[in-house]
Amino acid sequence: MSDNSFGRLLRITTFGESHGAGVGCVIDGFPPAFPIDVEAIQQQLQRRATGRSRHTSQRREQDEIRILSGAFEGQTTGTALTLWIENTDARSQDYSKIAQLFRPGHADYTYQQKYGLRDYRGGGRSSARETTVRVAAGALAQQWLAQHAGIEIQAYLAQLGELPCDQRIEWDQIDDNPLFCPNPDKVTELESYMDELRKSGDSVGARVTVVARGVPAGLGEPVYGKLDTELAAAMMSINAVKGVEIGAGFDCVAQKGSEHRDEMTPEGFLSNHAGGILGGISSGQEIQVSMAFKPTSSIRIPGRTVNVQGEAAEVVTTGRHDPCVGIRAIPIAEAMMALVIMDHILRHRAQCAEVPEQSSQIPPQA
Amino acid sequence: MSDNSFGRLLRITTFGESHGAGVGCVIDGFPPAFPIDVEAIQQQLQRRATGRSRHTSQRREQDEIRILSGAFEGQTTGTALTLWIENTDARSQDYSKIAQLFRPGHADYTYQQKYGLRDYRGGGRSSARETTVRVAAGALAQQWLAQHAGIEIQAYLAQLGELPCDQRIEWDQIDDNPLFCPNPDKVTELESYMDELRKSGDSVGARVTVVARGVPAGLGEPVYGKLDTELAAAMMSINAVKGVEIGAGFDCVAQKGSEHRDEMTPEGFLSNHAGGILGGISSGQEIQVSMAFKPTSSIRIPGRTVNVQGEAAEVVTTGRHDPCVGIRAIPIAEAMMALVIMDHILRHRAQCAEVPEQSSQIPPQA
Amino acid sequence: MSDNSFGRLLRITTFGESHGAGVGCVIDGFPPAFPIDVEAIQQQLQRRATGRSRHTSQRREQDEIRILSGAFEGQTTGTALTLWIENTDARSQDYSKIAQLFRPGHADYTYQQKYGLRDYRGGGRSSARETTVRVAAGALAQQWLAQHAGIEIQAYLAQLGELPCDQRIEWDQIDDNPLFCPNPDKVTELESYMDELRKSGDSVGARVTVVARGVPAGLGEPVYGKLDTELAAAMMSINAVKGVEIGAGFDCVAQKGSEHRDEMTPEGFLSNHAGGILGGISSGQEIQVSMAFKPTSSIRIPGRTVNVQGEAAEVVTTGRHDPCVGIRAIPIAEAMMALVIMDHILRHRAQCAEVPEQSSQIPPQA
Amino acid sequence: MSDNSFGRLLRITTFGESHGAGVGCVIDGFPPAFPIDVEAIQQQLQRRATGRSRHTSQRREQDEIRILSGAFEGQTTGTALTLWIENTDARSQDYSKIAQLFRPGHADYTYQQKYGLRDYRGGGRSSARETTVRVAAGALAQQWLAQHAGIEIQAYLAQLGELPCDQRIEWDQIDDNPLFCPNPDKVTELESYMDELRKSGDSVGARVTVVARGVPAGLGEPVYGKLDTELAAAMMSINAVKGVEIGAGFDCVAQKGSEHRDEMTPEGFLSNHAGGILGGISSGQEIQVSMAFKPTSSIRIPGRTVNVQGEAAEVVTTGRHDPCVGIRAIPIAEAMMALVIMDHILRHRAQCAEVPEQSSQIPPQA
Repeated sequence: MSDNSFGRLLRITTFGESHGAGVGCVIDGFPPAFPIDVEAIQQQLQRRATGRSRHTSQRREQDEIRILSGAFEGQTTGTALTLWIENTDARSQDYSKIAQLFRPGHADYTYQQKYGLRDYRGGGRSSARETTVRVAAGALAQQWLAQHAGIEIQAYLAQLGELPCDQRIEWDQIDDNPLFCPNPDKVTELESYMDELRKSGDSVGARVTVVARGVPAGLGEPVYGKLDTELAAAMMSINAVKGVEIGAGFDCVAQKGSEHRDEMTPEGFLSNHAGGILGGISSGQEIQVSMAFKPTSSIRIPGRTVNVQGEAAEVVTTGRHDPCVGIRAIPIAEAMMALVIMDHILRHRAQCAEVPEQSSQIPPQA
Repeated sequence: MSDNSFGRLLRITTFGESHGAGVGCVIDGFPPAFPIDVEAIQQQLQRRATGRSRHTSQRREQDEIRILSGAFEGQTTGTALTLWIENTDARSQDYSKIAQLFRPGHADYTYQQKYGLRDYRGGGRSSARETTVRVAAGALAQQWLAQHAGIEIQAYLAQLGELPCDQRIEWDQIDDNPLFCPNPDKVTELESYMDELRKSGDSVGARVTVVARGVPAGLGEPVYGKLDTELAAAMMSINAVKGVEIGAGFDCVAQKGSEHRDEMTPEGFLSNHAGGILGGISSGQEIQVSMAFKPTSSIRIPGRTVNVQGEAAEVVTTGRHDPCVGIRAIPIAEAMMALVIMDHILRHRAQCAEVPEQSSQIPPQA
Repeated sequence: MSDNSFGRLLRITTFGESHGAGVGCVIDGFPPAFPIDVEAIQQQLQRRATGRSRHTSQRREQDEIRILSGAFEGQTTGTALTLWIENTDARSQDYSKIAQLFRPGHADYTYQQKYGLRDYRGGGRSSARETTVRVAAGALAQQWLAQHAGIEIQAYLAQLGELPCDQRIEWDQIDDNPLFCPNPDKVTELESYMDELRKSGDSVGARVTVVARGVPAGLGEPVYGKLDTELAAAMMSINAVKGVEIGAGFDCVAQKGSEHRDEMTPEGFLSNHAGGILGGISSGQEIQVSMAFKPTSSIRIPGRTVNVQGEAAEVVTTGRHDPCVGIRAIPIAEAMMALVIMDHILRHRAQCAEVPEQSSQIPPQA
Repeated sequence: MSDNSFGRLLRITTFGESHGAGVGCVIDGFPPAFPIDVEAIQQQLQRRATGRSRHTSQRREQDEIRILSGAFEGQTTGTALTLWIENTDARSQDYSKIAQLFRPGHADYTYQQKYGLRDYRGGGRSSARETTVRVAAGALAQQWLAQHAGIEIQAYLAQLGELPCDQRIEWDQIDDNPLFCPNPDKVTELESYMDELRKSGDSVGARVTVVARGVPAGLGEPVYGKLDTELAAAMMSINAVKGVEIGAGFDCVAQKGSEHRDEMTPEGFLSNHAGGILGGISSGQEIQVSMAFKPTSSIRIPGRTVNVQGEAAEVVTTGRHDPCVGIRAIPIAEAMMALVIMDHILRHRAQCAEVPEQSSQIPPQA
C-alpha cells in the first residue's frame, strides 16, 4: 500500500527523493492560529545538515523551506500545511556506476524485489534525505510543545562505536561540538576516532538517546497506541536504526523486580528505570528513549556483491557519505519524539477532556 | 482516542479485562474460505497458559475459545471473525487491598491519571491476560502463513536474568522444557535459578528472540510502514517489553560498516546482521527480532509506594504471579510476528500484484 | 480488507450475523467515567425491534445487551467497551431452500462473487440484524451528547411509498404510532396502506429524515472528513439506503442561488437550505439529513432468478420480513447521526481546543 | 484533526488554497512501474478548467502539473507520487472587500467559527480550486483502470436548473458541447438558459450523473467500506454537492419491491435499479451515481449578511464565478469515481486473491 504517513491526529505525510526535485511534507491536523517561527525551523535543519564539519558528508544543501500551503499571514490555518525543500546539490552522476549493482546493506536489492524497479540515484526514496522534512515538521511541533505544554526535548550521542560518551551529561554543551557529545571530556577523543575512521574508509555505529521533559502524566493509548509502542515505531522508522529501548531497555533482562520497579513516595518516584512510561502511558517522569544506529554500508572498502544480472561484482562507495550516520540523527530523533508526543496530546484531550486534572501527589523524580 | 486495534488489512481489535467477563478479539480482513483449525489454536493457547509448570502463575484458566462470528461451516467468511474466551478463574478478592494503592512498576498510577478511574482488579485492561487473544489470532495467522506462503515462525528464551541460553539452538527441543529454552544443556541450570527466584519472592527479566523463515523478499511499506517499524511497534505493545532489536540490534553500535554490511554473492547473502530487513523491506533472509522483558513488579518483597490519597504506603504482592513474565511471552511474540507478516503480505499484493516475481538470483544465506 | 469499523476517535467495530450466535460491537475511544444507562439503551433497541406491531417482521428477539468489557462499577473505563446481543429467535430452516438460489435485490450473488462462499442463513453478515448494535452504540452516544453538549437527535418517517407524511411535524407524537409518522393526521391512512401492502405480498420504499438540534458551529474536518461527507457515508452504510440528502438535497438542482443561499442577519440565519452545514462544517443550525430506503426484495410475489449453477429458477420469500424496511430504520438513522456527531466533537476538540469560543453573533434560525 | 486525505490503499492527500502558491496532491499506494501519461492528465484538467467557454468563470489558470516526487524515467516508483500546480491567475484583491464579511452560503462563517481565523482570499482551502488535483489524480487512476481492468468512467449533466437533459444519452457527444450535455437536442436550449442566467446575475443548481462500465463483481467491503458508502462520501466531499443517489436513488421511495428488485436470468440481470451495487458490493453491472449541486452563492444579486463584528451588511459578489458550478464538476465526478473504484480493486485483491474467479453465469444486463 505504501505508507508515507504517520501520526493519528497530527499526521505527517512525506514525499521526495534524494536526487529528485526535492523533499516535502504535508502536516495535517496542526492546531490553527499558531505563529510559525520559520527561523527556528531553519536552525533545526542546520543541526541536521551535512557539510557542517569534517565528520559528515560534504554534500551542501541549502535546505531552505518553502511553505506551499496551510499558512495565512504567518499563522497556521488548521488545514494541510505543506513544507517543501528543493534539492540543490544532488550529484546523480556519482551513482551511475551503481545503477547496475545492488549495494550491500542498502535498500537497492529489496526495492528492486518489491517494486520491480528502483530510483538508484542516491537511494531514491530510501535515502536519509527524507528525514530533512521530518526535522522541519518536528521543529514546528517542538515550538508548539514548548509554548503550549512546557515540554522540552533533547537528544545526544551516547556512544560512538566502542566509545561510550554519556558518563557525564552537560545539557547545554551538547551543541558546542559537532558530534553532539554531552560529555565535554570526551570530545577530543571522539574527534580523533572519527578522523581515523574517515581515513580508514570505514564506518561505525552509534547509540543515541533522546529525552522529553515536562510531559504530563496520562499520554498514551492502551493497548496498541501505547506511548512506547509508537515511540518505538517512530524511532525504528529512521534510516539505519536497528534497536530501540525505553528507559532501562535491555538492561532490564538482568535486573530483579526489586531493583527495577520504580518505588513511589509522597516526594515522588525514587528512580526511573521505566523511562517515564508505565503500561504504555506517561507517568510524568522524563521520557527516555535510546536507539542503535548501524554503521552505513556506504564505505570505500571494497565489498562483494552481485549486479542486476545476479553476477558477482565488487562495490566501492566513493560518493559523499557520513562515516557515522548516528551523529546527524540527533535532531531527527528529537523531531520524531516531538511529533509523537504532540500527536498524543491531541489524542488524549480528544477522549479525556472531561477528566479532572489529578491533584498529582507524585511529582517527577527529584 | 483509545487504540485497541492494530494492523492495516489484517486488523485485530481486542477487548476485555483480567477479571471481567473474559477477553476477546475481532479479526477483520482475514481471507475467506479458510478452514479454521480450532484445535491448533487451543494448543497455542496452552503454550501461553499459566499453571503449566511450577515456574508460572498458578491461575488456571480453561482458555477455551468460542467463535462468536465470521465462520460458516468451519470456514472463515471474510467478514469480522470474533473469538471470545471467558474468564473462569479470576480471584478478584486478591486485589481488594490494592484498590487503595498504586503498585509501583504497574499501570495503576498512569491509568488513574489518564482516565480518572481504573479497574484495579488484576490490572483490568492493562493485564497481560489481554495477550491471550493475540495468541489465538496469531495462531490462525500462523496456519494461513504455513499453508499459503510456507512461512514458519518460532520463538525461544535467549536469556533468563544474567543467564544467556542461546549458545546452541535446538529448534525442535524448545517445547520440551517449560522455559522454552533452546539449549538443552542449560535447562537444569535455568530451572534451579527459577526455583531459587521463586523462593526469594523476587522476579527477573528475560530476553526473547523470535524468527520467521520463508518470508519472501519485498514485504514492508516504506517509509512509515516499514516491516521493522511495525515489528518494533508490535513487540513493544506486549506487556513488559522495554526494548526491541532487529538482527544485530544494539551490537551494531560497536560494529564497523565493513563487518556489518551483509555481502552478497551469486550463492546468497554471506551473513544476516540486518535480521532479514533492508530499508524496511524483507530481503528473503530469516527475519530476526529480539526483545527485552522487564522483571514484573508483582513480587512478595515489600516496597514503598503511595495510596490514592498520596500517603506513603507499603506494597506486597501475594496474588498468583509469574516470577519471569518473559517465559510465557514466547507464544505471544510468535503471534505478533505472524500477524504483522500476514498483514504485510496482504498489503504487498494489493499494491504490487503486477510486479513480476523476480528471478531472485540471491537465495537466503546458506 | 473487510471494513467492519467506522469513526475516527469514537470508533465502532461491529460483528455477527443474522443467524449466528449473535451480534456485537466494540466501542473504542468513548470518554471514561461516563455512567452507562443500560435501560435507555434497551429502550432504544425496543424502538428498532421487530414484532412491535403488525407492520414489521414477526421475528421476536429479546435484544438484551450484555456488556462484555470496558465498564467498571457501571461506568465506562475509557478502554474498549463491548456490547453483545445473543440471537434467540433465528429460524435458519426458513433459509434452507434459498441456499441454492441467489435472491434478486439481495447480497447473495455479490457475496458469493466476492468471497467464494456465503452464509446464506438470513443473509448472514449482510442482514439488517447488524444494525441492532449500531442502535445500542448510538444510544450511548445520544446519552453523552445530551449530557455533555445539549444535543438532541430525532428521526421520522417523511414518506411511505407514494404517501408523503411530513406536511406537519409533531415531534412529541412520532413515537405514538408504530410507523414513526410525525403527522398525526396521516397515521390512519398509512396504516391502511401498510395493511393492503402486507396482504399483497409486496413491499415499498420510504423516505426518512433525521435532525440534530443544538450542534455547535465548527464541527467537520475539511476537506475529506466534512461533516456532510461522513453523514452521507454513515447513512449510505445502512442496509437498503440508496440516496442521501443534506438540507434541501436534490431540490437544490432547480433552485436559484438567490433562493438557496441562507442569508444572515444579526438575528440569525433567515433559512436553512444548507441543512446546517456550510463547507462541510456545522453552522450551528439544525443538521438535517434525509435518506431513501429501497423496498425490500424479500416478498411473497414470485420472481425470476438463477440458482448457484446459473440455471433459471423462481424465488418466493416466505420468511418473516418487513414490508417497509424504512420504518424500523428510524432509530438506526438516529444512532448513526449520534455516532458521527460525537466523533466530530472529539475530533474538533483535539485540534481546536485553543480556539476561543466565538462570540457567536449569529444564532440559529428563529 | 483535519482530514485532507481519502482512500485506504490508494490514498490521496491534497493541499493548497485558491489564492496561495498553488494546489497539490500526494498519491500514495499507486502500483509501481506504471507509465504516467502526463498529456492525458493535462487533457482531463482542461475539461475542468475555467475560461473554456462563456458559461464558466473567466479565471484562466494554466493548470500545468509538475511531478515533485514518485516518478523515475516516466514511471511510478510505488512511493509517494506528488503533483503540484502553481496558481498563476489569482486575483486576491477581488476579495479584499469581503475580508470583513461572511458570505452567505459559503464556508466563511463556519471556518471562522472552527479555526478562529480564515484565509478569505477566494475561500482559501474551501475553494473548489482544490478539486483541480483530484482531477489530476483521478486521470491517472482512469489510465490504470482502463489498462489493467478495462474499466471506463463517464459523467454528464443530467439536469440544469429545471431543465432535465438526459432523455437521450449520446456518450460520444458529451464533450462536443461546453455543458457536457448528453442530449444533442437540448444543447441550444441549455446554452440560452445559461446566457439568461448569466445576465440575471444569478446562479442555478445541477444534477450530474457518473457511470462506470466494466467494473467486476465483488468490489466493496462490508459493512462500513461498502462501495456505495464510499462513493457517497467521495461525491459528497465535492464542493456544493448536497445529495447523492445510487441507481434509482430517491425514486426507490415510491417503488414496490416487485418493481425494484433486479430479477436475474441465465442471460443476465433484467434491470439495474440497484445501480450496480447490492449489499455494498458491485454486481458486475454498470455503476450509476447521481448527485445534486447547489447553486453557488457567489452571485451579483445583493444579499443580506453580517460582518465580522456581527453587524448587518450587504454582499454582492463581482469576482469571476461560475453561474452553474455543476457543469465543471463533470470531470471531478469522474475522478472521484475512478479513485474510489481503483482503491477498491486494490483492497479486494489484498483479501480475496485466493478466491477463484467465479464462472460468472450472470453477465451484466443485455
